[in-house]
Amino acid sequence: MNYPKTILNLIECFKKFPGIGEKTAERMALSTLEMEEDALNLFSKSLKDVKTKIKKCEKCGSLTEDKLCEVCNDKNRDHSVICVVEECKNVILFEKIGSFKGVYHVLGGLISPLEGINPEDIHIKDLIDRIKQEKIKEVILAIKPSVEGETTALYIRKILEGEDVTVSKIAHGIPIGADIDYIDPLTLEMAIEDRRQVS
Amino acid sequence: MNYPKTILNLIECFKKFPGIGEKTAERMALSTLEMEEDALNLFSKSLKDVKTKIKKCEKCGSLTEDKLCEVCNDKNRDHSVICVVEECKNVILFEKIGSFKGVYHVLGGLISPLEGINPEDIHIKDLIDRIKQEKIKEVILAIKPSVEGETTALYIRKILEGEDVTVSKIAHGIPIGADIDYIDPLTLEMAIEDRRQVS
Repeated sequence: MNYPKTILNLIECFKKFPGIGEKTAERMALSTLEMEEDALNLFSKSLKDVKTKIKKCEKCGSLTEDKLCEVCNDKNRDHSVICVVEECKNVILFEKIGSFKGVYHVLGGLISPLEGINPEDIHIKDLIDRIKQEKIKEVILAIKPSVEGETTALYIRKILEGEDVTVSKIAHGIPIGADIDYIDPLTLEMAIEDRRQVS
Repeated sequence: MNYPKTILNLIECFKKFPGIGEKTAERMALSTLEMEEDALNLFSKSLKDVKTKIKKCEKCGSLTEDKLCEVCNDKNRDHSVICVVEECKNVILFEKIGSFKGVYHVLGGLISPLEGINPEDIHIKDLIDRIKQEKIKEVILAIKPSVEGETTALYIRKILEGEDVTVSKIAHGIPIGADIDYIDPLTLEMAIEDRRQVS
């Protein structure tokens, strides 16, 4: 005997998620038995909605249920400053801080020749088009400082050379609360490079 | 801006599972975006089916989509030997080994005065009724050796005193492949107590 079909299906479904193995999937599938019917129905409906309702913002590529995302739709934001990020979830991170008042552009990946990801595979062309059409004043590159990140940042900087737009990148340096003794040399080097005049 | 409603709902749903925190729930919700529509539809349907299709076997309490589970329905099994377990998933574990040919009884919990779980809160009465009605020859207690497990086992043994049924318990001892140097004293004690004559 094995579990009933429905439970076996659920175990298989949970196993499809990153980092979820056989045992965890089994535990998760069994714990649905103790959930409220309403909760399960909402869960079931939301999964169905993923493919029908969730779209990418036609302008910036963020997740949205409309044509444009909330930020691109918001007239009170500064539409002349674009913060360029790798993934949709980076947008949410910046929004949680709440201090950035510009708009975003989601690349949907980073250039990686090793993995066969070329500039045309990510949304760089859309970004350049936006910069040319929308009178953008500043592009802030908020991409992680990995090999792929640096390659992507360099590529965007090269393409924008000669355009009437300021390109900046977020500062890399010592995180607040970290002990300077334990910071890796590369971060320290970046921190010195990104230093700011204070007087 | 935050995630669209559907994604926020999914994050909340995933957070309801044991051991899933905010970050993991977010990662799981976002990874549904990359899943095939068929996979999501099966997932969605299976969640709906949990409350409508999954029942407990009327005889032993295992999970089933019918009146009786596969084991209770199987005429080739030895219906005079009942293996008593705590949870439904224990049945599947024993079935995976495949050597046990009797039937099961799922208690659905263990007696725990501290947590307010009394004998009448778990399926002990059903077990006693089965033993009396179905001419059971042997009851094998396959319950974990915790305080609650020992209490439950003792309670069942006391109730069955005087009945014409053999009560046994599974052996506790050194696991196969384990180094005897690293076994805790209680397990060693149990291993000596549960020793078997070999010549």
